[in-house]
Amino acid sequence: MTKRTFEDIEEGAVHDLGSFRAEEAEMRAFAERYDPQPIHVDPEAAADSIFGGIIASGWYTASCCMRLLVDGFFNDTVSMGAFGMEELRWKTPVRAGDTVAVELAIAKKTQSDSRDDRGYVDVDVTATNQDGEEVVYWRATNIIGTRQ
Amino acid sequence: MTKRTFEDIEEGAVHDLGSFRAEEAEMRAFAERYDPQPIHVDPEAAADSIFGGIIASGWYTASCCMRLLVDGFFNDTVSMGAFGMEELRWKTPVRAGDTVAVELAIAKKTQSDSRDDRGYVDVDVTATNQDGEEVVYWRATNIIGTRQ
Repeated sequence: MTKRTFEDIEEGAVHDLGSFRAEEAEMRAFAERYDPQPIHVDPEAAADSIFGGIIASGWYTASCCMRLLVDGFFNDTVSMGAFGMEELRWKTPVRAGDTVAVELAIAKKTQSDSRDDRGYVDVDVTATNQDGEEVVYWRATNIIGTRQ
Repeated sequence: MTKRTFEDIEEGAVHDLGSFRAEEAEMRAFAERYDPQPIHVDPEAAADSIFGGIIASGWYTASCCMRLLVDGFFNDTVSMGAFGMEELRWKTPVRAGDTVAVELAIAKKTQSDSRDDRGYVDVDVTATNQDGEEVVYWRATNIIGTRQ
């Protein structure tokens, strides 16, 4: 299959990338290893917190979103990596059992001035839970190869 | 032990949070689950890429940094979560066996106007490899409780 190149990407296009379910065991295992704050790993302390119970690590949520971005977009694209993010906002906590849908919108594309093999694509990633609440948003700049 | 509160945090302070080693098996397992791009999971495709071999998912690197932030700072602090990040930059790829040191610098603190139980702290997180190259940088805004 021919991969999507920089030329194929359209400003304004929105890609629906499906959803993931926050599984309690995986959420906890992730937090135990990478983000062992009481609100993520200690049910009693979390119950006493402003969140009223265990919430997912934001890094777990973002990582699960990334999986959908890779499966539904980047692995079908001539992707050469990313510089980073301009902004990331954790908006509503994710809890075990939540279903989170992920959308990728193409905000802006810019051909590289110095290299004709690539361009830069700003994308807006938005994840929304089963109640329609936004859980995380970020804007990233990706490097996408041109047709050769 | 009394936890660090908003009052205890000093603008300009730099906290050395130690280092982690990027272990090949863990790096690969993380990427297989959350970021299965060829440059992270396929040795042959990665060898042919601009990186010349497998590199860590940026989300793996950030998650490993987060562990050191939690162990060395946030779990000793009255932490009430984070709004997100103003900026994140992946600078140098991390490869298996790299040792990555993490530093947290306090950029700015602002008492909440509306709630006297908290303040906002902007932090700069910088991770550097064994060759002194910066691998990732981010600025986040954290919510920190005041002394009660």
